Parts: sequence; C-alpha cells; structure tokens
Amino acid sequence: MVNVTETTDAPRAPGRPRSIRADEAILEAALDLLADGSSIEALSIEAIATRAGVGKATIYRRWSGKEALLHDALRRLKPPPPPPPGRSVREDLIALVGNTGHNPDPRMRQIMPCLMPTISRSPEQYRLYQELVEPRRRMIREVLRRGIDLGELRADLDVELTLALLTAPLLMQRLLRAQPDLDERDLPARIVDAVIAGIVAR
Amino acid sequence: MVNVTETTDAPRAPGRPRSIRADEAILEAALDLLADGSSIEALSIEAIATRAGVGKATIYRRWSGKEALLHDALRRLKPPPPPPPGRSVREDLIALVGNTGHNPDPRMRQIMPCLMPTISRSPEQYRLYQELVEPRRRMIREVLRRGIDLGELRADLDVELTLALLTAPLLMQRLLRAQPDLDERDLPARIVDAVIAGIVAR
Repeated sequence: MVNVTETTDAPRAPGRPRSIRADEAILEAALDLLADGSSIEALSIEAIATRAGVGKATIYRRWSGKEALLHDALRRLKPPPPPPPGRSVREDLIALVGNTGHNPDPRMRQIMPCLMPTISRSPEQYRLYQELVEPRRRMIREVLRRGIDLGELRADLDVELTLALLTAPLLMQRLLRAQPDLDERDLPARIVDAVIAGIVAR
Repeated sequence: MVNVTETTDAPRAPGRPRSIRADEAILEAALDLLADGSSIEALSIEAIATRAGVGKATIYRRWSGKEALLHDALRRLKPPPPPPPGRSVREDLIALVGNTGHNPDPRMRQIMPCLMPTISRSPEQYRLYQELVEPRRRMIREVLRRGIDLGELRADLDVELTLALLTAPLLMQRLLRAQPDLDERDLPARIVDAVIAGIVAR
C-alpha cells in the first residue's frame, strides 16, 4: 500500500506533494533496475533506494516489502487499457488485442521477458502477473459475449480459448519476436480477422 | 561440435564408448543446472564440470565454449518432432501443434521460461531458440501449404500468421499457464478446430 501522507518538517515544495514525488522516484528506480537487466530475485530494496536517492527507511515507510513495491511499479508501467470504442465487435477486439504486449514505455519490452522465469516459479509473481493482465482479458471476454448475444459470433463459442487465440500471438511476437518472418504490420487487425473468419476454404 | 574420438589410455568399458557417456553426463549436467534455476548468464563451464564429475578440460576438448555446449544440450532436450501422420490436414496440424511446448522431460517446463530473458537480449541465444523451433514450424507450414493446394484451406491464407495462431496459445499456456481458466483438455485439437472454422456465426 502506498502511504502518501508522510509527515515532513520541511516546507512543502510547489506542485505535487514531496511524498508523491518520492513515491514516483522509487517506483521509477525499480523499473529502471529491472529494465537494466536485474532479475526480480536480485532486485533489492537497497539497490532501489540508492537508485532513487532515498534512504531504505523511506521505502519501508511506504511499502511492506519488495513484492508490494513491485506490484505498484508494474501497475504504473502497465495501467489497464482504455475501454474499447464500443462501435463494433471487430473494432473493439482490434483495439483491445492491439493493447496486448504493447506499451509506449520501452522498459516494458525489456522487463516482461525477464519476469517470465519468476512468473513460472513464484506463486506470488504469478498472481501479480494475472492481476496485471486481467483487466484487458475481462474487457475482451465482454466484447466476445456481446458478439454472441448479438448473434455475430457462434453461440457455442469457447470464450477462454478465443481469448488465447487473440492475445497469445501478439504476446509471443512483441515480447520475444518469436517468428522473425511474421509481418507485423496491422497485426492486431489481421489476427482478429483471421480468428473471426477461420482459415477453411468456403 | 562434439568430439567423440577422445583418446584415452584406459581400456574401453563395455557398452557405449566412454567419450559418449561423458558427453551425455556433461549435457545432462547443464540441463540439470538450468532446471534448478540457473540463468544462462550464471551458468559456468566450471559448474557444469563439477556437476558432471569431469574436469573443465574434458569439456573444452569437446565444445568451443558455453554457447556450443548449450546448443547441444537444448537440442538433446528438444529434438525435432516426428513427421506428422499425413492422413488429413486437420490431423497433421493437431499432431504438430500438440508437440508445441510439449516435452516429456519435466526440465523443459522449468528451463524454457528461464531462457526467455536471454532470448530477448542475446542475438546468439535468439538464433539458438530459432534453430530449436524451426523444424516444427517448417512442418506446420508444409501442412498448411498442402491444405491450400488441396483446396481445403483458403487460397489467400497468411501462412505465417496462421502458424502464430496455432502455436502461440499453447506456448503461453504450457510454459506460463498464462490463462488459469483455460480448459487444457484436448487443447491442440480445440485450437486447430477453432482456427480452421473461425468464430463467426454462420
């Protein structure tokens, strides 16, 4: 939990309160260290404090430990996607699928592959990963169910499987460039159209 | 390159030549260390030698260095899939897709997520990963092209995109259990059928 009500004897600086600026510096320091190649295991409160230019006590006043701090740092890096435009099932899927593995912050691309070993080993980090991606998944499920209700998508649709088909290829490509020969232009729209129409000759 | 012609003064033991048994012990030791959680960066020839019960010189007589050794170790862990049965496009796809992220050796599931940070950082490891998965990809592409030629699949099929749709969901699920709510029973067949038929109501 972030505590933004730190008391201080110094006069308050103009703009954002000092405590919020310190929080941001600490979260940014953790993200910078991960992007520089630190594993989660190797990441220490001490290293984060040094990078942020604060004392360790300042961090422990705000977070119970590394896991809580990392949760806030990753949430800062990966906020939930904006709600889809709501015009058509296809357009909404393209918007949400396009958000998968996409992040304007270049640190995301460096950090995510490094989280994978931890995600697969640590139940806490697995839960953290699930919390991070669940908002996007929930929105995609809602669009798929709307498509079923509207009669646009098959009534017997396997929603969870469709979610995997829509998101996994972009994750593998954007995080690992899994297929060097895959054309990445308009990839979200091409994925959505392929999943909607299927590949069978008609 | 593996050198299996090591000279030795000791009389040859019955069964496989001693040099091949030593090779296997060394490759197994490297895989064990990775499965125990060593990163590729942290893995040293010294640690592999200790685990295998051989001297470092024995390793350097066989491999030029860590990269060459890892290449052979991962190739041992993940041999190319058997050729598909060749009965129908659907059956062949199910067989090949089912091989994705699947390995009877439990170390595979521990090692693969740990390779991901390295794959995304190191051009050499990226190339190694590509070499490991390329045989399966080539077989899937061939089945898809056969389906096009037979008129079973759309003539304008994007083969590389279809490859991603078929394989990425299983990789994400088997390596990371990316979606806790995804039913994994018959997953390869369900993926192939969904990709073939599409999700649109007809």
